[in-house]
Formats: sequence, C-alpha cells, structure tokens
Amino acid sequence: MQNKIIDLYNSKKPIINGWLHLPNSFIAESFGKMGWDSITIDMQHGQNDYQSSIAILQALQNSTSSPLVRIPWNEPGIIMKMLDLGVLGIIAPMINNKKDCEEFVSYCYYPQKGQRSFGPLRAQLHYGKDYFKNANNNILSFAMIETEEAINNIDEILSVPQLSGVYIGPADMSSSYGLKPKFDVEDKKILDNLEMIVKKTKKYKKISGIHNGSTKYAKRMIDMGFNLVTVLSDFRIMNDAAQNIVNEMKEIKLDNNKSNSY
Amino acid sequence: MQNKIIDLYNSKKPIINGWLHLPNSFIAESFGKMGWDSITIDMQHGQNDYQSSIAILQALQNSTSSPLVRIPWNEPGIIMKMLDLGVLGIIAPMINNKKDCEEFVSYCYYPQKGQRSFGPLRAQLHYGKDYFKNANNNILSFAMIETEEAINNIDEILSVPQLSGVYIGPADMSSSYGLKPKFDVEDKKILDNLEMIVKKTKKYKKISGIHNGSTKYAKRMIDMGFNLVTVLSDFRIMNDAAQNIVNEMKEIKLDNNKSNSY
Amino acid sequence: MQNKIIDLYNSKKPIINGWLHLPNSFIAESFGKMGWDSITIDMQHGQNDYQSSIAILQALQNSTSSPLVRIPWNEPGIIMKMLDLGVLGIIAPMINNKKDCEEFVSYCYYPQKGQRSFGPLRAQLHYGKDYFKNANNNILSFAMIETEEAINNIDEILSVPQLSGVYIGPADMSSSYGLKPKFDVEDKKILDNLEMIVKKTKKYKKISGIHNGSTKYAKRMIDMGFNLVTVLSDFRIMNDAAQNIVNEMKEIKLDNNKSNSY
Amino acid sequence: MQNKIIDLYNSKKPIINGWLHLPNSFIAESFGKMGWDSITIDMQHGQNDYQSSIAILQALQNSTSSPLVRIPWNEPGIIMKMLDLGVLGIIAPMINNKKDCEEFVSYCYYPQKGQRSFGPLRAQLHYGKDYFKNANNNILSFAMIETEEAINNIDEILSVPQLSGVYIGPADMSSSYGLKPKFDVEDKKILDNLEMIVKKTKKYKKISGIHNGSTKYAKRMIDMGFNLVTVLSDFRIMNDAAQNIVNEMKEIKLDNNKSNSY
Amino acid sequence: MQNKIIDLYNSKKPIINGWLHLPNSFIAESFGKMGWDSITIDMQHGQNDYQSSIAILQALQNSTSSPLVRIPWNEPGIIMKMLDLGVLGIIAPMINNKKDCEEFVSYCYYPQKGQRSFGPLRAQLHYGKDYFKNANNNILSFAMIETEEAINNIDEILSVPQLSGVYIGPADMSSSYGLKPKFDVEDKKILDNLEMIVKKTKKYKKISGIHNGSTKYAKRMIDMGFNLVTVLSDFRIMNDAAQNIVNEMKEIKLDNNKSNSY
Amino acid sequence: MQNKIIDLYNSKKPIINGWLHLPNSFIAESFGKMGWDSITIDMQHGQNDYQSSIAILQALQNSTSSPLVRIPWNEPGIIMKMLDLGVLGIIAPMINNKKDCEEFVSYCYYPQKGQRSFGPLRAQLHYGKDYFKNANNNILSFAMIETEEAINNIDEILSVPQLSGVYIGPADMSSSYGLKPKFDVEDKKILDNLEMIVKKTKKYKKISGIHNGSTKYAKRMIDMGFNLVTVLSDFRIMNDAAQNIVNEMKEIKLDNNKSNSY
Repeated sequence: MQNKIIDLYNSKKPIINGWLHLPNSFIAESFGKMGWDSITIDMQHGQNDYQSSIAILQALQNSTSSPLVRIPWNEPGIIMKMLDLGVLGIIAPMINNKKDCEEFVSYCYYPQKGQRSFGPLRAQLHYGKDYFKNANNNILSFAMIETEEAINNIDEILSVPQLSGVYIGPADMSSSYGLKPKFDVEDKKILDNLEMIVKKTKKYKKISGIHNGSTKYAKRMIDMGFNLVTVLSDFRIMNDAAQNIVNEMKEIKLDNNKSNSY
Repeated sequence: MQNKIIDLYNSKKPIINGWLHLPNSFIAESFGKMGWDSITIDMQHGQNDYQSSIAILQALQNSTSSPLVRIPWNEPGIIMKMLDLGVLGIIAPMINNKKDCEEFVSYCYYPQKGQRSFGPLRAQLHYGKDYFKNANNNILSFAMIETEEAINNIDEILSVPQLSGVYIGPADMSSSYGLKPKFDVEDKKILDNLEMIVKKTKKYKKISGIHNGSTKYAKRMIDMGFNLVTVLSDFRIMNDAAQNIVNEMKEIKLDNNKSNSY
Repeated sequence: MQNKIIDLYNSKKPIINGWLHLPNSFIAESFGKMGWDSITIDMQHGQNDYQSSIAILQALQNSTSSPLVRIPWNEPGIIMKMLDLGVLGIIAPMINNKKDCEEFVSYCYYPQKGQRSFGPLRAQLHYGKDYFKNANNNILSFAMIETEEAINNIDEILSVPQLSGVYIGPADMSSSYGLKPKFDVEDKKILDNLEMIVKKTKKYKKISGIHNGSTKYAKRMIDMGFNLVTVLSDFRIMNDAAQNIVNEMKEIKLDNNKSNSY
Repeated sequence: MQNKIIDLYNSKKPIINGWLHLPNSFIAESFGKMGWDSITIDMQHGQNDYQSSIAILQALQNSTSSPLVRIPWNEPGIIMKMLDLGVLGIIAPMINNKKDCEEFVSYCYYPQKGQRSFGPLRAQLHYGKDYFKNANNNILSFAMIETEEAINNIDEILSVPQLSGVYIGPADMSSSYGLKPKFDVEDKKILDNLEMIVKKTKKYKKISGIHNGSTKYAKRMIDMGFNLVTVLSDFRIMNDAAQNIVNEMKEIKLDNNKSNSY
Repeated sequence: MQNKIIDLYNSKKPIINGWLHLPNSFIAESFGKMGWDSITIDMQHGQNDYQSSIAILQALQNSTSSPLVRIPWNEPGIIMKMLDLGVLGIIAPMINNKKDCEEFVSYCYYPQKGQRSFGPLRAQLHYGKDYFKNANNNILSFAMIETEEAINNIDEILSVPQLSGVYIGPADMSSSYGLKPKFDVEDKKILDNLEMIVKKTKKYKKISGIHNGSTKYAKRMIDMGFNLVTVLSDFRIMNDAAQNIVNEMKEIKLDNNKSNSY
Repeated sequence: MQNKIIDLYNSKKPIINGWLHLPNSFIAESFGKMGWDSITIDMQHGQNDYQSSIAILQALQNSTSSPLVRIPWNEPGIIMKMLDLGVLGIIAPMINNKKDCEEFVSYCYYPQKGQRSFGPLRAQLHYGKDYFKNANNNILSFAMIETEEAINNIDEILSVPQLSGVYIGPADMSSSYGLKPKFDVEDKKILDNLEMIVKKTKKYKKISGIHNGSTKYAKRMIDMGFNLVTVLSDFRIMNDAAQNIVNEMKEIKLDNNKSNSY
C-alpha cells in the first residue's frame, strides 16, 4: 500500500491529477494507463455514485495513479463507503470553518485519529492484511476551499492536524465573491487568494491542489507553488475534442460543396 | 419522421457521422448537440448493448443527427429490437454475398419489402402514429463490405434492391487480405477496392460510407466520392486528447522540476 | 412445480394472460398479485432482456401466475437461458414452417424430447430437486402464427408433437397480408384465419392463444374458442390511463380558467 | 431556459403535475408527451435515485413539462446533484420550521441567494451557456408542509424570501394529527389546514401545491385555490387500471365458464 | 405481517442471522431458502445500495427469514426509503449517546411514536392494506454499540423507549479501545463489555445481537445470553470456501506432479 | 500477453479452473487472488452477460489466472464481443460435429486462420499494441463434448486443426444418454467416454477439460489424464458453505434450547 501523491509531495514534484466525471469503468481503465499521478472520481458535480465507483476502482487496480474521490457533501456515510472501496484520498466540498473540517477528517481516519468504522472489504482484498495498520498514514483528506467564509477561516482550517491538504474550486470561489464562476480565473481578488493559500499551506505543511481548465493555467499554478493540479475532466476533454472534429469536417464540407460534383 | 442522411444524400452533400463506442447516454447527449449529421451506436466492437441503447436514443431525441446502429452480427432478433427503439439505420457487419444481404435487408423492412415484425413501441412514441407508414422509406440498411469475399461478390450484393448502401471497414478488409488491420489505409490493393466501391455504389444508386481514423483521411474519402464518413469514436477521441494533456503536463513537469524550489 | 396454464386448459377454463413490456421488477411484483393466470415477459417488442428478467422472475416467485416469456427470435441461447431462470413457457415469434417449429421445440426440452442443455440453477432453486424430472411435462412451447406462410403451413406446424400450442400476433398477421398492423382486427381474411386456427388447434389438441387490445375483443376471442387471451401490456395500460387523467384535468382547467379568480 | 410552472402561475392558470414513482425512462418519455405541465421524479417514497434520474431527465428533454424532483430528505448533496442534472424545482419533505426552510433554500440557489456549488454539467449542456445567469430565477423550491409542527410554524416558513412555494402531503399531515394517512382527505382539521395554507400562500405570494388521489379531488383543490395539483403516480395509475382489466376479464370468465363448452 | 425475530425473542429462542455483503438478488434468494431466522442487507460495509435492495427484498419475499438492513449512517432519508421497501428492522451504526438514539428511532416509526413519513409502496403491496397499522409494532430498531463512548452511555441509550435492541460490532469496539479490529474477540475489556451489555439489555428488555466470525464463537455468544447472532457474510463464506478448494487442489497438484506422466 | 493455460499445458501441469456463475465483479476480484490457473465466466447456465463481463474482466486484470468464457451458444456475435473484451479462451456448448466445430473456430481467430472481425478495444488497451499479432496464438477454443452425437463424431471434431481442446459437460452427456444429469458421474458408459476422450485428445494434441462437483473427483480426473479441471462454481461453493453454517447453528440451537434459561 503506497500513495504516489505522498511520494511525489515528499520529493517536491508536482502531482498531475486526472478527473473522472463519467461513470464508466472503461474510461477509468484507459485513464489508468496514461500516466496521471492520481485520478479522482467526481461524485459531486460528476455523474458517479457508489455503484459506479466499484468497477472504476477495480479498473484502476493495476494503475500507478492514486485513486481519489470527491464526495457530494461532507457526510460520514459516503466517505466511509468510498474508503472501504479502497480510495486513497477524499476531497470534501465546502469546508468553510474549523468545525466542518474537524468533522470531515474524523470520518476519514480510524481511531484514535478519527472515528472511521472498520470493515474495509475491498480495500483489504486489494491492499492486503496490513490495510488497517497502514490506512491512517496513507489516506489523504483534502478540504475544498471555495467560499469567502473559508478564506476568512483559512488558518483555523489549516490548523486541524489530521487534514492533509486543501483543494481549490476556482468556480465556486468566484461565485462566492459575486463573480461569474469559471476556471483559470484572472480576477485579482481570486489570484490573491490563491497566492495566500499556497503560502499558508506551505506554512502549515499541507498539500495544495487546484482545478484548472487548461494545461497552460495548470503549469502556471505549479509555478505559483501548487502541489497538485487537475486539468479538465474525461467529459470535457472528449467534448471539446469531438466538437473540434465536427467543426473541422464541417468547414471542409462547406468548401467541398462548392466544387463537389458527385 | 425524417432521416437527415437521405436529405443530404439527395442534395449531394457529405454526411459526417459520429461514433459511440461507450455505453453512456450523457456522451450521446453531448454528441447530439455537436452537429454530426448522423450518430452510430456501435454494438459490435463498441461496448453498447440493447439496454444502454434505450437511454442513448432518448438522449438523442431532440438532436438533428440521425441515429444509426452497428449490430454485433447479422441476426434478426437484435436488428428488430433496435429498429423498435427508433434507430433510422442498421449497419450489418460481414455481409459477404447475396444470401447474407438478402437475409439482412429482410429483417429491416416491414412486409412486403421484408419480414420485420410489428411492435415499434418507442419508435411510434417518438415518431408518431404514422411510423408504420413511413418506416420502410426512412430506414437505411448498410452492408459492411470488409472481406475479400465481399469484394468479389460486390455486384450481387449491390444488386439487392432493398439495400440502401454499404459501409467500409478498412481494418477488416486489410486483415482479410493478410495485411495489418488499420484505418486510413494506404495499401494500393485496398485503395483500389475503395475506388471500385465508390464507382459501383454510384452505378447501383447506393450510399457509400467508410470509417476513418483522422479528419484528413475522411476529407480525402469525401473527395474520392464517399457519401458518409465516420471519424474515430467517442472513446478514441477522449483517449487521444487526454493522453496529450498528460504528455504536455509531464514534459512541463520535467522542465519545471529543474528550477522548482517549493 | 405446477403450471397453472395446464390446469386451466385441462379444466377447460380460459387463461387470462398479463404482459410485461417494461423491464421493471416492481411492476412485475404488482402484476403477480392481481390474479392473472399467467404473465409474459416480452423480450421481442418489449424492453426486457436477460438481466431484467432475473429480478422480474424473483418478484413473481410467490405469485400463482405462471411465468412465460416471448423471446426476441427463435434462437437456442436465449431460450435455454430463460428456461434456466425458471419460466414455464416460451412464446417464439415467426414460426413459419415445420423446420422452424422442430428447431424451436428442440431447444425447449431435455433429451430425448429435445436438446436443451442442463444447468437450471435458478429453476432448481425455485422448483426444487425434481426440476429435471418435471420440466419436460410442465414447460409449454408456443409457436407464433403471424404470417401468411405460417397460415399456409398450419397443419405441418401443429403436427410437431412436442409443440404445446400457438400464439397469434394479429398485427403481424395483418401486416403479412398487406393490411395495416393492429390488434382487435375486423378484416374478414384475418377473422377467418382465427376461426380456422381455433378449429385446427382443437383437432391437434394444442393450446391456442391470442394478443388483444381490449377486454371486449378478448372476451369475443374466448367465445370464439381461444384458450389464452392477453389484454394490452403494462405500458399500454399505464399510458392510456395516464393520458385520460391529463385529458380530464385539462378540460376542467379550461372551464375552470374562465371563472378562476385566484 | 424557461420554467412553465412560473408562466402558468403568473397567468393564474392551474398547473397539472405528473408523478414518477418508477425508475424507468421510457415511462418518463411517455409522460413527457401527455401534456402534464410539470413532471416530478419521486426520490422519497418513489423508487428513483440519482442514476435513474439521468436517463429520465434525458427522456424528458423535448417535453414541455417542467421537470421537478422530490428528494429523500433535506440534504445538500442530493439537492445539488439533482439541480446539476437540470431539474427546475426541488420538493423537500418535512420542512417543519424556519431553520429547516432556510437551510433548504440555501442549497437550491447560487450565491448570494444561497450556497449552491457550481458545476452544472448536464444543466448547462441542456439549457445553454446562460444557465448560471438564469438558474436562480427559474429554479423553484417547494417546502413540504405535512406535520402539525409545520402548520404551527407556517408563517415563519412562508416568510423565508427565497422559498418559491409549499407542497402539501395530505397523508403525512393526517398521520401527524393521529389520523389514518390517506389522500383526498375529508377530515375537517385537515381541510381547515388546507384552506389556511391557500390563504397564507396567496398572502406571502408563494405557489401552493398538493398531492391528490383522484381527478375529482384535484379539481376541488384547484377550486379551493391551489396552484399546482398532482394526481396519483405512474405506478398507481398502472396498478389500478391493470387490476380493473383482470377484474373485468375474470367476471367474464365466471359467466363464460357456465356455458363454455370448448 | 409478522416479524419472526419478535416471535423467537418472545419464545426465548436464539435468532440466527444471515448477512448479505454482496448486491446480488440470486444470492439473496438462495439465503432465503437456507433457514436463517433473519437476513440483513449490509449497506454500510457491504456493497449494497438502495437499488440493489429492491431486487434482494423481492427475492426474499417468500422466505420465512425476516429482512433487516444495516444502513450506512444514522440518516433519515435512507432509513425511510428502506422501510418503504419492506424491511422489518434497521441496524444503525455508531449510536453513541441518547441524542443519536432518539433521532434514530424517530426515523423508524410513524407518529406519534416517531416522525417517519408515509408512502410505503412496496411494503404495502407486500404486507397488505394493514401495513400502516402494523408497522410500528413489527419494525425493529437496533442501535450499534461499538465505541467506548457508547459503552459509557449504555444506560441512556437503552433507556430510549422506542429502541428495540442493540447490535454489537466487535471490530469497531476493539478499534475504539485502541485494539486491532477483529471478530471473535478475546480481549478481556471487550468480553467484559459484552457481558455487561447482555445483562443491561435483559434489564431494559431489549434484544441483544452480535456479529461473529465463526459458528463456535456465535454459539458461545448465545450461551452468554445474546439473542441474535450473525455468522460471517455471503462474501466471506464464499471466499473462505473457494480458497480452501484452490488450496486443496494445489496441494494435490504438487504431489501429483511428481509422478504425473501425461 | 501470455496465456497461463498454454504454459501449464506445455509443462504438463494440471490447470485448476475457477467458475463464475454470478455476475459480480467483486467475487471475480477475490477469485483472481486465490491462485486459480484460469477463471471462466459462465454465460450459458451462469447469470453473466456482456455488460457484467466488462467489470469482471477489469477486476481480473492483475490476476495471473487466464480469463475464459463459456458462451450461451455457438454464435459469432457474442464470441467476437467477448474476445474484444480480452478473454483468452472460448468454451462453446454443444459442438456435435465437424461443421459446428469449423464454424466455431472460424469465429475465434483472425484471418487467415478464421473470420474474426477486428476492433479489440479493451483487449488492445490491456494487452498492448501487439494484440493483433499475438491473439491467434494465445486464444484457446474449447468445444464442449456433451452429447452422444458428439461422442460419435469425436474424431472429425478433434481433426479440426484450429481447435485447441475439448471441455466435457458430464451432466449433459448423461442426459444425452438418457441418464440423470449430474457431475462426478460413475456410470460406466460415461466413464468409458471420458477415458476415450482423454486418449483421443492426447493423440490429436488437444487440451482436455472437464467440469467437476468435488475436489476428490477432480483429482481423479487429473489422474485419468485430463489437463484442465473445474471444481463447482462461486455460487455452489457459497451456497453449500452457507447452508452448512445454518445447519450447524440450528443443531446447536436445538440442544441449546433445552437448557437455555435466558
């Protein structure tokens, strides 16, 4: 049992994270062979649920990418069920204050570190008999920082000792400040927050991650100091690339029609 | 009830066909908004089956793309079930001679044109009370020409009056001649076959279609005279584009690591 | 193990058959409590497949209605899989001659009566250890008579000794004669065929069944001598009744709108 | 993006609401063509969940009926996931006081109106790029008033400014007062509550809705002043109508048996 | 409607409980014929969810084993949905104090005993028209006692009048005290707790249940005074027995290889 | 790409084959870790279909057990779809003569060896770019010999050069001779057939396999000379072991009841 994210973080290398919006284990299997450092199943804004995650995690079993999950909300039932399936990290949306954060991390870890319930059937099948012994040290907990409230409470959130890191949702953070929600934000207020978060996470020795809409912006975030960057998602990548093909063929078609004599 | 493929064919415009390998109705819904002229559910080499096709066809219901299906094999049960769901065309693999072709088209059409059984519950819900009256004129039957045997029997296949057109599988045609199976073939033997098929289909007033691995080759096939061209599939498009993102981020990472001091 | 259809047939009582178009086990469970003598899972024009049938048959397990299935086509794979699940009868579409019929019945029965393969896991769990001994005597095979060809070959079809009975598809029979496909047919040609079939089945001691679109016509068919009558399907019943409710509420709404002052 | 319920409410016309208990997208597709003004997916007492709702909403995509959902409980995870799928309204059970109601509406709307998280993938695909701009004005939030506690707190609940309306569960309201739970209630206590709620909702300019067991009672509720009325559900409609057919056939059978001589 | 657990408890007989980890209705159907007194669907550490439970409960419908469910967490939505499906008892994890327990039982019972919402569609179809009248008396609520906190609060938990009983999770209780989580515990601290719980449940007239890893330990727990004992689960039973077969065959193989000359 | 069965056969070691009746990928994953040399997905008498096989094969991806499938019937559509998913062998039921066998093997291999169609999406993802080159040499074709007709035609079946081996269904073979179908047969006629088959397969250099109901009989078959032996199935193993636990607990209960004083 080994979490590649921890290794990369310790060796100060950036972590490139893939994102699964679609509940399809064959897409997951192909992602598992591409070289992502970690792959996140999105259960919040993505279309995954518990059942679809079983096959997805099985499809990722001989990938070197660490499996993470973004849960729909900070609720113990689904967090523990996903950990039992063998994910190595939880990204929890809308962690806005210390209480949110303390509850969240308590669900992620076995006692005494937390209150996670024992029964990791697939996790134990996959990681072996020592799963219980190793779980608390290898499972990562990421609090999403995506509201003005969270920004204001950033120190008390980062002070929670069991928390592994934070993950930035730029769209929600924008929306929280009354800005239009989007990725790859250029608004000064948000960029200042990102700089501040990078600085604070280094101070508190936490991992920092952020969602991006392009490789270019993701690289910029790495340069800014973020440890983990996500680029788009399976669905967005497919959608954009397929639309480009239609557009390319349709332009051809228009040109072609002029002289086409069949 | 109207089949866009027929309209485009009659107005001598190329038909750009999308291809669904993955059994996911949300991908289908997004494909339905991209502007493809037709969209094919692949049940042969793709991962679709009857149940996944129900939601996919519902997800395509207000798209202008005509829904087609490639069936696993030339068998009446699945052909009629898919027509009942409302597809407007069937692509049948491995039609190698007149007998194959006559059996195939008999499954696609109501008597007297064929022997299709009546009971089009979703088709009638979607296309309305006149479905039975309009079905035979709007449903397309495509025989896949993909073996040396089929090439040798091309005239007897194209002579079957109910047949709407042919669809070329370049990979299987290559494999049939002892060549490595691939798309965008450059082997003279295969290219000669393609030229011959285009000529023959025009003579017999049939639609000609072909599967391609790139927009460039697809355009070339349109120029050669093919009426309908497919470019890749949802899965291949996603897979290639996602791999490019990883590659791009990983190169960055290597460069970045040199000077990265976080 | 007991097939209620056989008991009713032997005591000369009509058999009222329910019809499941929809792949939903809760609908099946409710049908199982209504008092139908038999209930047919429709895999041809209905949306059921093998997987949906497992839960449906489990949902019918303490119903007194005998479970039947209409298969998509006369193919051994699906016939034997459905028998393994515990259905007590197979309705096969488009049996047009002696050869079709002999192949069909051979798939339904264990040797020496036929060539059914042994491995009835759910059937044995449900009906008990004696399943093999009792299966051949309790499973019914119904050939659908629905084409002009089948009418012309009716004697050779009914002469096949293992065949239990016939089931009439009035829509396809109409379509086969160039008439508009529908239930509750009044065309003389078709009605004459029905009379003839009733007479012949009595002569050959076979069960006769027919699909109907109304209780009134179904009663008429019982009076004509049919042993088993189906009335509509789960979907059609729901659809018609729900549409009536909308219509009734919308008329009210129109009247109501005139004087409505809220 | 347009919510038919809002149009009808503004033009003072009654809203006739259909109800989907069963997790089946083909039933949904048929409901979408019947003329209901809105259609509600029931995730509380119905058998729907998140995955079944994807195909149902796709099947409703070219219907003019506004899609609503009744969630299992007042929880942010599932509310936001359903909104991301494109429902135009949420019915939340057991809203008993101001705090319940304020939390509920906060989950339904983007900031500053609420705390909904951004990521509406299917909603944006379906409604277009302006979804974020239009969502807060078109999404409806209905608090179920179904307990004595809620009745006692009706003013504080209706005072929550973001709340769009209330929906009455007559069975639970009866049960809360120690009466037998049922629809189409005649108990004076409950009827008085209904009158009071109609009056209060008009005062607070909120939409009022109620669940009914018959068209007759639903019309009476419209006359009483309710804006939105539901009549039964897909399952109940099917179940009652199918039972009637069995009953009708079985009476015939009894009569018929007397003189039946075949 | 009759709950076998209550009958056995009243006649002072032990209750042997089966445990379904796997979301498979055919396994459930086979368990339903084995003679277990009750069968529990595990939604917490097992792989069941709401949809898989529908078919499982249907598959158990003519079993004499009482159907129970262990829910993922003490949340009203899922508790009420499972009761609507017809389970006769809820096992709730991690009930640590009086407040947890009072909330839990309030979700299980109709008013005035609790706040359960009315709409038991499958339960009423299965148990009949009197379901509402009988539900509160036949549904059992089990609080899992599995933490040091719960042990310390055992009297206040057992004092909640609506609570039917407790269920012991020995693995979590061990983990809570800093011991390695396992079944069939021998640690004195835990055994003392078990003795204490048996004594207290008898005093408060509650049912006591416990999860076991072997028949031997389960018998010992019956001797200690526990009323209900679970032995392993479908998955563990299958896994252990299948591994034994491989081991047996592989030993043979090794021996055999020496002299094998084919 | 490597087929463990071929390695073991070449080194004259017995092949111990596991059998998956149940369509559950978690059972498959656990089987993949037990040490079976090969694991067969049963689509004929088992409850697997195409969709369930996707997740099962993904769950087996880092197992050393070679994945096989038993198809429902000798039909090209499903054979090619399963090969595309990456199975390394096909077991075809009811191969009774040379024609059956020649058709069967033609579906399993790419030209010129056969007529398999190209498009192995998952197979290529899993086994790599060389899949096409290696497939024909690594995929095994097993003809089931299970009727008197097949026994009579054994030489012409074994003479088909592309055929890899035979697999014996003792239950069907018994049934074919008018005997009661069962495993672990002792009837002289059947045992003589088994001896004959072992001898003939060695002569024709084909692999011989057989289904068994116990480890004892399986060992005896290895001693007789069979190369591949199956023992029971996931379901049977689970069912027998679970029934034993109930029986053991219930005997205890009876004894215990006498002196039980709680």
